[in-house]
Amino acid sequence: MTVFPPQEFARRRAALQAGMADRGQDALLLTSPADVFYVTGFLTRFWESPARPWFVVLPRTGGPVAVIPDIGVDLMSTCRVAEIRSWPAPDPVDDGVTLLAGTLADLVPETGAIGLPMGLETSLRMPVADFDRLCRALAPRRMVDATETVQRVREIKSELEIDAIRAACAVADRAFGRVPDIVAGAGSLAVVFRRFQAALLDEGADWVSYLAGGAGPDGYGNVIAPAGPAPLQPGDILMLDTGAVKDGYFCDFDRNFAVGPPGDTARRAYDVLHATTEAALAQFRPGMTAADAHRVMVGAIRAAGGIPAGGRLGHGLGVTLTEWPSFTDRDRTELRAGMVLTIEPGVVSAEGRIMVQEENIVLRADGPELLSRRAPLQMVEIAP
Amino acid sequence: MTVFPPQEFARRRAALQAGMADRGQDALLLTSPADVFYVTGFLTRFWESPARPWFVVLPRTGGPVAVIPDIGVDLMSTCRVAEIRSWPAPDPVDDGVTLLAGTLADLVPETGAIGLPMGLETSLRMPVADFDRLCRALAPRRMVDATETVQRVREIKSELEIDAIRAACAVADRAFGRVPDIVAGAGSLAVVFRRFQAALLDEGADWVSYLAGGAGPDGYGNVIAPAGPAPLQPGDILMLDTGAVKDGYFCDFDRNFAVGPPGDTARRAYDVLHATTEAALAQFRPGMTAADAHRVMVGAIRAAGGIPAGGRLGHGLGVTLTEWPSFTDRDRTELRAGMVLTIEPGVVSAEGRIMVQEENIVLRADGPELLSRRAPLQMVEIAP
Repeated sequence: MTVFPPQEFARRRAALQAGMADRGQDALLLTSPADVFYVTGFLTRFWESPARPWFVVLPRTGGPVAVIPDIGVDLMSTCRVAEIRSWPAPDPVDDGVTLLAGTLADLVPETGAIGLPMGLETSLRMPVADFDRLCRALAPRRMVDATETVQRVREIKSELEIDAIRAACAVADRAFGRVPDIVAGAGSLAVVFRRFQAALLDEGADWVSYLAGGAGPDGYGNVIAPAGPAPLQPGDILMLDTGAVKDGYFCDFDRNFAVGPPGDTARRAYDVLHATTEAALAQFRPGMTAADAHRVMVGAIRAAGGIPAGGRLGHGLGVTLTEWPSFTDRDRTELRAGMVLTIEPGVVSAEGRIMVQEENIVLRADGPELLSRRAPLQMVEIAP
Repeated sequence: MTVFPPQEFARRRAALQAGMADRGQDALLLTSPADVFYVTGFLTRFWESPARPWFVVLPRTGGPVAVIPDIGVDLMSTCRVAEIRSWPAPDPVDDGVTLLAGTLADLVPETGAIGLPMGLETSLRMPVADFDRLCRALAPRRMVDATETVQRVREIKSELEIDAIRAACAVADRAFGRVPDIVAGAGSLAVVFRRFQAALLDEGADWVSYLAGGAGPDGYGNVIAPAGPAPLQPGDILMLDTGAVKDGYFCDFDRNFAVGPPGDTARRAYDVLHATTEAALAQFRPGMTAADAHRVMVGAIRAAGGIPAGGRLGHGLGVTLTEWPSFTDRDRTELRAGMVLTIEPGVVSAEGRIMVQEENIVLRADGPELLSRRAPLQMVEIAP
C-alpha cells in the first residue's frame, strides 16, 4: 500500500545494506512507524494504538522480514517485504518476542551484530521488559547502535520523496491561502484550528497529524500549544503551524497573520524573520554543518536587530514531522544535497512573546530550493 | 492546559502514589504522551515530533516534576506540576540524561526503586542508549516494572473522564450520521475519508488521530488500511472506524454502510455482529475477566452462525485510541466498574473478507452503559 514503485524500495534497501556492511551489522531491527514505512511501504494510522509492537528485520542481504501482529498481515502483504511472520497480538505471555528472536537467530550468526537505532531522535517501540528478554534470547549476538546506518540513508531524499513532500507543502500552501476566510466569524482559536484542518483535508491532505499555533498581541507564548477557547482579538498575531500528510510524507511550516493592522513591534519581528530566512536561502550549501547553518541564522537575526528564540532554528523533514539534523550550535551533522529541511527562525518579539516563520526546502548542490511557497514580505492582514 | 480541575489531578496522583507505596516504588518515571497528559494535563500534538524525549517524575509524595525540553516550558507551566526542569533539546551530547538522573537522584534514595512501565502495551519514549546511561548513573537504585501501578489506576475512569469520552463519541455519532451525504458524489474511498475527517472536525473534534476503514463486496480485507483511490461500487460494504479526540480523550468506534442494497452474505454477517454486541451489552459485568468477556462474544458469534475474526474483540479506551485490557482468550485482567471499553466483534463474512462492529461503553456495577449511539439494527443503505 504505497504510491512508490518497487525500484524506490530496492534503492533504499541497497543503501541501508551498504551502510550495514560498512558498519559490520548483520541485520537491522526496526520498530518505529517511520522506519517500517520507509523500508516496506507499510502505511497505516493504526500505530496510534499502543497495544502491539511491530518489527521489521532487514538482513544484510535479501528483502525485509516483517514480524507483526496478525491484524496487520493483510495490509503488509501489499507491501515490499520478502516474508511475513505473525502472531496473535496482544499476548500477555509472549507478545512476539519468541517469534522475533527466532527470526533474528535465523538471519544473524551467533557471532553477529544486530543493528538497532539507539541514538538521538530514536526510541524503541516495544516494551522494555520484552527487549531485555529478546537480548537474553539472542546472546551471544550483540545489539549495536544503528542510528547512523538509518539516518545517513533516510536523510537524503530521492526525487520521488521530494515530490511527495512538495505535494504536502502545496496542500498547506493552498490551505494557508484560505485563512482569511477561515478566521471570518470563527470567534475562538479553537474554531480556527478546526476549520483550518478541514481546509487542509479539502485541499488534499490524507490526514493532519500536526497543528499547533498561537495568537496574542505582538506574538505568542509558545509554538506547541493546542487551541484554547479564547476569542481572537484585534491586534493579535495569529500563527498556524501544520504537519499535513500526503502519501505518508509530511510538510512542516507555519504562517503568521495579523488580526487587523499589525503593530510596529510585530512588524519589526516579522521583518527580522523574513530577512533571516532570506539569508538562509542565500547561504545554505552542502558541506556546511547544521551548526554552521545555525550560525548563519543567528547572525542574520542579530544583524537585523532581533533576539533569537524558540530553540532549534530548523530541522530535517520527511517521513516524520521532524527529522534530524537540528540547526543548533551543538549539531555537527553535515548538510548534504538531497536533504529536505525546514528553515525556522524564531525571535523574541515582546516580553514573554515570540514569533516564528518556517519554510520547507530541499538542499541542492547550489543551495536551497523552496518546497513551500515563500511567506509574503509582509504579514497578511485579516479582518478582526 | 487542560479542561479538568485540580481535584481531578489530585485524585490521580493520590491513586498512583497509593499504588507506588503498595509496590515499594519510590518514584514513577513516565515518558509516554498518555502518561504525561494523565498526570499533568500537558496536552500537545508536538509529540508527533520524535526529536526530543519528555520526562515526568512522580515521587512517592508531593507533586510531579517535569524534566523537559525548553521548548515545552511555557506550555507545561500551565499544567499540574510541582516543578519544571528543562534543557536545550535536542542535544547530541547529553539530551536530558544528566538532568533526569539528577532529578531522580534527588527524589529516590540509593536503596530505592524507580518504577517504569515496562510491560504489555507500553514503550519507553527515549533513546535506548540514553536509557542505558540513565540506569548506570542511577545505580544502585533499581528500575522496576510499574506497568500495574499505572494501568490499574488509568483503567478506572472518573466521571469527568467518562464525560470527555462521551463527548468524543457524540462527535463521531453526529459525523457518522452525515456519511450518506459525504459519500454522495465522492467517487473514491480517499475522498470519503477526507470528507469524513472534515465532518468530525466540523462536529467538534479537536483533531482526528485515527481513521481507517475499507470497502468491498460482502466486507473488507482488513480494518487498519488507509484509503485507496479505488471508487466505491454498488454492492460494497463501507466501514469507517474513527478515533476522534476531544480535550485529549478518544472515541473509538466504527459503522458499516451498504452501498446500494446489501447482499444476503453481508446482511447475515451484520446480524451476527449486532446480536453479539447485544449479548455483550447484556452480559458484561464487573468481576468477569477480559477472557470471560471474550468467551461471551465468541459464544454469541458462534450461536448466531458466525466465524470469529479480527483478533481481539474489544479493548480499553481513553487517553489513547486503545488501552488494555484485550478481549482475547489470553487476557486475565479483571473488568471493573468505571472501565471504558470497546465491544468489537468481528466475523468472517466471505472468503478473505471480514466485517466488524464497534461500540464504546463504560462498565457500571450493573453492566455496560453505552457511550456511542447504538449501531442501527440494519445497515444504513447509501445511494450508489
